[in-house]
Amino acid sequence: MENDENVNVVEQLELVAKAFVDHYYHLFDNNRTSLSSLYGTTSMLTFEGQKIHGAKEIARKLIELPFDHCKHFVSTVDGQPSSVPGGILVFVSGSLQLPGEEHFLKFSQMFQLVPTSQGSFYVQNDIFRLNYG
Amino acid sequence: MENDENVNVVEQLELVAKAFVDHYYHLFDNNRTSLSSLYGTTSMLTFEGQKIHGAKEIARKLIELPFDHCKHFVSTVDGQPSSVPGGILVFVSGSLQLPGEEHFLKFSQMFQLVPTSQGSFYVQNDIFRLNYG
Repeated sequence: MENDENVNVVEQLELVAKAFVDHYYHLFDNNRTSLSSLYGTTSMLTFEGQKIHGAKEIARKLIELPFDHCKHFVSTVDGQPSSVPGGILVFVSGSLQLPGEEHFLKFSQMFQLVPTSQGSFYVQNDIFRLNYG
Repeated sequence: MENDENVNVVEQLELVAKAFVDHYYHLFDNNRTSLSSLYGTTSMLTFEGQKIHGAKEIARKLIELPFDHCKHFVSTVDGQPSSVPGGILVFVSGSLQLPGEEHFLKFSQMFQLVPTSQGSFYVQNDIFRLNYG
């Protein structure tokens, strides 16, 4: 990055990205029904190739996943400014432990966060994939 | 998606995403110097956590990677419309074989493609991570 101002913007953006990721997986692992508040009517989720549209349908998909509790372990979080003013692209890699399972499933996930008029963010784009191997 | 028009838009977008991914890794594996033509002056690459800005610096980073030829094998490609008109978010998982190596490295990568006035696309955002494990 060319100058101090840019560095600061990028550092702040990464802090927001990391805070979002912590919040998102905390809700996912402890209170999955509340995830719906993070999405909007135009939000899109692609979950293992299945496309789901809108906060209501996305929340239904996540709540109906066939396991009760899981635990996400985040390995890396990368953030970049998206082309929407104030928007952030977030890229996560990590692993996931399902209830009663000893082994971990590796996953990657990306989000586009778009600012709201209330000074918060909602998830406009969400793409999730398990990394088999 | 709610109606036939939306389905068509999404199908076309996924075709573009897949065609881009084929093109990108073909260039990467066969003619890495030409990758610079896919980026613009505002493009951003985060490569294993390292942030690089602008087509020239991105091309230098990719050309100077410490191996001559590699081979990408794509496992999944997901696409979603981004918030830029005509823009596409592309999410790839796959594996990578370095020269002289028998084993494969798993990777995930995301791109934001932004349309150009010439009816093509450039890569505004690119985040790459190896999935160790």
